[in-house]
Amino acid sequence: MNDIQILIDELVKFRDARNWDQFHNTKDLALALSIEAAELNELFLWKTTEESELVDQAKLKEELADVFAYALLLAGKHGLDVKEIVLEKIKKNGEKYPVEKSKGTAKKYNEL
Amino acid sequence: MNDIQILIDELVKFRDARNWDQFHNTKDLALALSIEAAELNELFLWKTTEESELVDQAKLKEELADVFAYALLLAGKHGLDVKEIVLEKIKKNGEKYPVEKSKGTAKKYNEL
Amino acid sequence: MNDIQILIDELVKFRDARNWDQFHNTKDLALALSIEAAELNELFLWKTTEESELVDQAKLKEELADVFAYALLLAGKHGLDVKEIVLEKIKKNGEKYPVEKSKGTAKKYNEL
Amino acid sequence: MNDIQILIDELVKFRDARNWDQFHNTKDLALALSIEAAELNELFLWKTTEESELVDQAKLKEELADVFAYALLLAGKHGLDVKEIVLEKIKKNGEKYPVEKSKGTAKKYNEL
Repeated sequence: MNDIQILIDELVKFRDARNWDQFHNTKDLALALSIEAAELNELFLWKTTEESELVDQAKLKEELADVFAYALLLAGKHGLDVKEIVLEKIKKNGEKYPVEKSKGTAKKYNEL
Repeated sequence: MNDIQILIDELVKFRDARNWDQFHNTKDLALALSIEAAELNELFLWKTTEESELVDQAKLKEELADVFAYALLLAGKHGLDVKEIVLEKIKKNGEKYPVEKSKGTAKKYNEL
Repeated sequence: MNDIQILIDELVKFRDARNWDQFHNTKDLALALSIEAAELNELFLWKTTEESELVDQAKLKEELADVFAYALLLAGKHGLDVKEIVLEKIKKNGEKYPVEKSKGTAKKYNEL
Repeated sequence: MNDIQILIDELVKFRDARNWDQFHNTKDLALALSIEAAELNELFLWKTTEESELVDQAKLKEELADVFAYALLLAGKHGLDVKEIVLEKIKKNGEKYPVEKSKGTAKKYNEL
């Protein structure tokens, strides 16, 4: 079994042992994800770009793990194959951001 | 090679082909992640919990893939092993939320 | 002097007494705002719509005040007249969402 | 009548003309606020701190107005006096961040 499925299974096991499935609806899982993303961002608040690179690794691990946890639970709930959806998105982005037009610029595709 | 590393490698390849490494500092990657998380949440805005379960799967795939993309790029940039950090976090959460105390309640650990 | 300006002045006074102007650049103020918005949302996480209406008023006041504080600091920093920009936005939204088309539906303007 | 109440009244009038009160529950208003905060942050994504100061003023006005709109609707829904809650929060923060300890540092109160 691949690592992504192992993680989803562990997260579901953790959830089910606590009867938390009742709270884990799609809308609240997405909300939880964005709250964890904000906690991740708080590590960099009022810090320069350079200071942010030196973020405390223990804190980064914890906050990033929380983000992954809710993203994986969402994928699991909807039977999505994480590898497949990310590879598909990369392909799609390759069409929106062709190398020759997007090289070295951070412009959005609709401004290229 | 495991699936998570395959995805990180593809994302880095995509980034480097466009010389986007210059923009992908830690602080902005985290910011990008939270913006994508907000776009994911927008799929559920003004929708009931029940309606949210019936979310358009194509849109869900795209928004969730964007979230994973930035989370994976962050993990890759800091050399973090996604499997390891998520398993560690599950273990830690198991201590914060022991089954007997947290079963069936959505209370935060500091209110249990 | 109007209430909005009084609040901006008080916030600036608080900031300047602590020499925090050096941290309060536009990008970080916006980031702070979104982190406070996430803390506000955390009050409703795992809660039903009905439960959310009964939110602890003391907590709601605190989190909403934080959101206003950063929004007001941003407006102050860029010399924006809050009353004017909100009234302008209402007018603009009136054109995007004409009553006859948008009555009773939560659809986005581009789906009306 | 003060400017803040004028804005709340205009927003409520706009909402009621469209029968949107049914969608504007507390949980979704808070979610809408955080989505607008993310759109505001998107103006600064991949931009340096310096570039962010030069943000397009028309876009800044629009995104900030959206943030204020939902914050004001939330305040209005819960009968909160914006002036009062912000002044109270400033007072509270003055206790958490005494000038002598917090001058010139961006540390959180629990690290001072």
